[in-house]
Amino acid sequence: MTNSATNLRLKLPMACIILEVIIIILFGALVQYDDETDAKLWHKEIANGSSNYDNDFYYRYPSFQDVHVMIFIGFGFLMTFLQRYGFSSVGFNFLIAAFALQWATLMQGFVHGMHGGKIHVGIESMINADFCTGSVLISFGAVLGKTSPVQLLVMSVIEVTLFAVNEFIVLSVLGAKDAGGSMTIHTFGAYFGLMVARVLYRPNLDKSKHKNCSVYHSDLFAMIGTIYLWMFWPSFNSAVTAHGDDQHRTAMNTYYSLAACTLATYGLSAVVAHDGKLDMVHIQNAALAGGVAVGTAGEMMLTPFGSMIVGFLAGTISVLGFKFLSPILEQKLKIQDTCGVHNLHGMPGVLGAIVGAVTAALATKDVYGDGMADVFPDIQSGDVEASFQGIRQAISLAVTLGIALLGGLITGFILKLPIYGAPPDTICFEDGIYWELPGEEGSHEELTTVRTPDEAEKLNA
Amino acid sequence: MTNSATNLRLKLPMACIILEVIIIILFGALVQYDDETDAKLWHKEIANGSSNYDNDFYYRYPSFQDVHVMIFIGFGFLMTFLQRYGFSSVGFNFLIAAFALQWATLMQGFVHGMHGGKIHVGIESMINADFCTGSVLISFGAVLGKTSPVQLLVMSVIEVTLFAVNEFIVLSVLGAKDAGGSMTIHTFGAYFGLMVARVLYRPNLDKSKHKNCSVYHSDLFAMIGTIYLWMFWPSFNSAVTAHGDDQHRTAMNTYYSLAACTLATYGLSAVVAHDGKLDMVHIQNAALAGGVAVGTAGEMMLTPFGSMIVGFLAGTISVLGFKFLSPILEQKLKIQDTCGVHNLHGMPGVLGAIVGAVTAALATKDVYGDGMADVFPDIQSGDVEASFQGIRQAISLAVTLGIALLGGLITGFILKLPIYGAPPDTICFEDGIYWELPGEEGSHEELTTVRTPDEAEKLNA
Amino acid sequence: MTNSATNLRLKLPMACIILEVIIIILFGALVQYDDETDAKLWHKEIANGSSNYDNDFYYRYPSFQDVHVMIFIGFGFLMTFLQRYGFSSVGFNFLIAAFALQWATLMQGFVHGMHGGKIHVGIESMINADFCTGSVLISFGAVLGKTSPVQLLVMSVIEVTLFAVNEFIVLSVLGAKDAGGSMTIHTFGAYFGLMVARVLYRPNLDKSKHKNCSVYHSDLFAMIGTIYLWMFWPSFNSAVTAHGDDQHRTAMNTYYSLAACTLATYGLSAVVAHDGKLDMVHIQNAALAGGVAVGTAGEMMLTPFGSMIVGFLAGTISVLGFKFLSPILEQKLKIQDTCGVHNLHGMPGVLGAIVGAVTAALATKDVYGDGMADVFPDIQSGDVEASFQGIRQAISLAVTLGIALLGGLITGFILKLPIYGAPPDTICFEDGIYWELPGEEGSHEELTTVRTPDEAEKLNA
Repeated sequence: MTNSATNLRLKLPMACIILEVIIIILFGALVQYDDETDAKLWHKEIANGSSNYDNDFYYRYPSFQDVHVMIFIGFGFLMTFLQRYGFSSVGFNFLIAAFALQWATLMQGFVHGMHGGKIHVGIESMINADFCTGSVLISFGAVLGKTSPVQLLVMSVIEVTLFAVNEFIVLSVLGAKDAGGSMTIHTFGAYFGLMVARVLYRPNLDKSKHKNCSVYHSDLFAMIGTIYLWMFWPSFNSAVTAHGDDQHRTAMNTYYSLAACTLATYGLSAVVAHDGKLDMVHIQNAALAGGVAVGTAGEMMLTPFGSMIVGFLAGTISVLGFKFLSPILEQKLKIQDTCGVHNLHGMPGVLGAIVGAVTAALATKDVYGDGMADVFPDIQSGDVEASFQGIRQAISLAVTLGIALLGGLITGFILKLPIYGAPPDTICFEDGIYWELPGEEGSHEELTTVRTPDEAEKLNA
Repeated sequence: MTNSATNLRLKLPMACIILEVIIIILFGALVQYDDETDAKLWHKEIANGSSNYDNDFYYRYPSFQDVHVMIFIGFGFLMTFLQRYGFSSVGFNFLIAAFALQWATLMQGFVHGMHGGKIHVGIESMINADFCTGSVLISFGAVLGKTSPVQLLVMSVIEVTLFAVNEFIVLSVLGAKDAGGSMTIHTFGAYFGLMVARVLYRPNLDKSKHKNCSVYHSDLFAMIGTIYLWMFWPSFNSAVTAHGDDQHRTAMNTYYSLAACTLATYGLSAVVAHDGKLDMVHIQNAALAGGVAVGTAGEMMLTPFGSMIVGFLAGTISVLGFKFLSPILEQKLKIQDTCGVHNLHGMPGVLGAIVGAVTAALATKDVYGDGMADVFPDIQSGDVEASFQGIRQAISLAVTLGIALLGGLITGFILKLPIYGAPPDTICFEDGIYWELPGEEGSHEELTTVRTPDEAEKLNA
Repeated sequence: MTNSATNLRLKLPMACIILEVIIIILFGALVQYDDETDAKLWHKEIANGSSNYDNDFYYRYPSFQDVHVMIFIGFGFLMTFLQRYGFSSVGFNFLIAAFALQWATLMQGFVHGMHGGKIHVGIESMINADFCTGSVLISFGAVLGKTSPVQLLVMSVIEVTLFAVNEFIVLSVLGAKDAGGSMTIHTFGAYFGLMVARVLYRPNLDKSKHKNCSVYHSDLFAMIGTIYLWMFWPSFNSAVTAHGDDQHRTAMNTYYSLAACTLATYGLSAVVAHDGKLDMVHIQNAALAGGVAVGTAGEMMLTPFGSMIVGFLAGTISVLGFKFLSPILEQKLKIQDTCGVHNLHGMPGVLGAIVGAVTAALATKDVYGDGMADVFPDIQSGDVEASFQGIRQAISLAVTLGIALLGGLITGFILKLPIYGAPPDTICFEDGIYWELPGEEGSHEELTTVRTPDEAEKLNA
């Protein structure tokens, strides 16, 4: 099932070890504990009257761990729906996430975290690194099953770098707000990945068509991913918002958006699916769109009412996208989007950006009170009007789309070079190409061998 | 595998969308941020000297997320033990939980959370909504496999409403304590569900008997649910107790009760099961009874010693219930209790209520000190004697049983109307009736096809 | 599949119930709430000016729950990789963990937690009990599939006791630091278990060889365990360190060590495995070695740079151990190490101890500032030089190895008595010996029956 082209004995070790050595050297040269992780500096703060409870660790670590679960279990298992790609789904997700969080620490540090020539790290940099990693994993969803781990590592190197640049432009230059990343994470990751998938278009992918689908148990494994993403999305959106009401409100808005989204998803799925039955693809994906769509506005005074409307719309859009838009993307635009990230992250991300722009434009001192300083510091300080904050948000969406599409285009061509051990069209969506599979060399037939009656007959002829 | 009667193309979307639209309208009219989630109000508190750390979010959000995991992963996967009902177990659990938590926010708000005509929401209302949802999911366990999602939504509408009423009577009118819900959640959910199952009795259910059992992998998926419920039960029982020693003590009492319960469960299972072997049904369920049984007394000064005795008893009762009582319930009382909720939630819930009444009656100022105000404010204030608090607890159990049984009776008859697309007796416990199953339309035989030697022979004849 | 020798109808209930009754009696006689879980005592602290937030519950409960997940889900599912031993892996893990955490509370209390003749319990004792349990589960990994649950309970009784003794010597007598337990948990558990496995050597174990391997889905279940262990290891190492910078820094160092370890693992796995493919055994295990290896030094000022180097080394050593050392251990030293705990916990634990000794020896007031008091109180107080702290750490490793090996030796001989219902060589690694399996008595062939073409042919002859 392998040949020399896809044999990774040299390629993968070289990629992993060279990248890790570079990272370690850069960490040695540039990375320092921040004031809250350094023994000496924190005890200076204590001496100046801080209490240990003021350490940001206690405000953010539970959220961090929830985000961490979303990155490693959520994304990893969500993609195990493919019948013969579970090892790769969880395993490559694990690999590129472990790489990307380190690389993101460096890139985000370079772009907006330098202090006296050093990158300071602590719980907030850890969350931000996980966020950037999430964006890469969204792109991974678009190319799932058609790429080698070496390609994925190369993609991560570029995508993380561009993510940090885009994030800097959106948050620091344009002064937009995007705590849960509707723009910076979801829109960016989705359109970057879709463009990569476009460039890597395989006209003969239907040779692997029979493997590009689920089986009963693989769908159950995928539901582990779905449910964890759903449950912890409130933590994701609130992980880096301001302390107090902001974290509290963001988590709650997200919770309501997701609940409404789920009802919309079930309703719409039964409408559009075959025979009035529910389709697991919708449940696994569209029910999450509500979290994406309040990624920008969740920290604002969106209200539970507003959050539910947004969630309801997001679920609706997402199911309809799976049913009607995905086939068009594939046939007309030649975008083979394995996990349907356009429906889960792309459109809901754009919706979230728009909702954020509108909500920001409507912000008033009367509603936010002194809390304005946390959510819209520039409005509080009088630097901008609310309406202009809305415009900044809208421009940020455009910039994000531009950088994502252009970045994905370039990355796609780089990944097209025939040096990374990509799978041939006939054995995409197949673990056996990169993994030693159990039972292959033993005397036992494998558990999961899918056999048609015809094949069974031949065996017994 | 479907016919027009069970086709949900219109019924399920109508139910989902109408319910969600009603909820959104009611949220728009009635629901507001509370003081801790509202930007303006919280910053007034800050201006008055509060610190961000005083925001209840930091006291309760980690517990909330643990409870959330129990509701969506714990209950969802616990019910995947059925061989061909995994999609429905996780999927319908997801649907009705997402609905019930919204509806519960409204119903609990109406009954005991109105402030100037508005329902105030924050982390505590989120936890309480999840608790109410838990009760519905317990009832779901009794009717698992024999009901359509539309029936389940209708059941949720009624059960959530009655739950809120009962909770109000028990906690506010009668002044009982029930932080972890031995009465309000477990006893209520179990007896409500059992009564529904009684009314929906199917004399010919044995036509689906071959599907009403587990296979090897489905039992492993179910263990995911069991273990998560077991681990996070300390968070469940302590999620809404008073800050400080109360949360701390409740979590610890629950931890010890569950540990002792687990040893009792393994011991008893080997005694009663076939050939001295362990029975997965016991391990998956009875090991959790210790959490149920300290749901009322866990916040009291039950001591680790007392908690262990209660846990040990709960595990024992539960295993014996599965072995000896469930068959009687089914044959004599015509209650087909799919998940055995009577053994996991019913009897241990009643045990927990009794333990709570006794522990309350024994409370003394000498033991509780000033902590009496948190646990038994009415005893502290001198309004009642400890013995009378015990009586209140006992009356609360009786009220809960009454409302649950009567509510379940009425609900059962409503659900019996032949308009909800319930499955026929021959295809209960079968996902295919409501879900598009992978592989059904493709050229591949499905992975999980269970084939007897006879069938295999025919295929190859 | 059973005979009277392995029938546990009397043995397991007796073991479970006698042990639990002893525990309950001892808890009744000896265990008390500590100052932070007792209603009266905590409210005295409140009266003296403490705030509820000072209750250690809020500093440590989220970490506790993460550790709890590692113990019950992490270890439990990691061991489900065996094709026919999933019930036992999760189920016996559950049983012995539930027992060990109770027994550990007593043993650790006797040795270093007595206050006026009573053992005081609270969140820190709960974490320490879970830690001790982790050590037992590591040993369980070495003997997985070859032992009865009664043997495992007996092993737990002894191992927990010796763990507490060793922990007392290392931490209290020798004054070493080992917050994440590189020595006390991992080294101890691994070498104890390996010695037990040595004594229980089965020369004819190859009779069960065909069951001592994974199948596709069992490897996916195992990945649930791996990923949870990986994600929550930062919480494990930081769970009992000092508040503030110490918890924060320890979590972060562990996070970086694991990330670097993962890259090393993937790189090395592709180098050494067959055909340049990745080997699930490495991914499931070696990627975790980075957490083990910073168990001692993680709380020190190891820096992210140092943590990554340690993690990289740990992953490398671990993969090479699986490839080259495990076969030698089995063939030459007659140690049948089912899960390869020597590679995941043994060697990385020793590495962690050495790293801890070196890092301690290099500690300077210039780097730690006033934080020295938290990490190295004896250096801060001037009682010892940093270099001597390093020597203490090294001696602690030697002591740990000695107690583990000797304890394992004695325990092995005790477990060799033919009274515990151990499985015969022919049916090791098989759930059916101790569990009622689904489908065995029904009319359906079991899902997971592994059938060779030959067997299929015979069936159809």
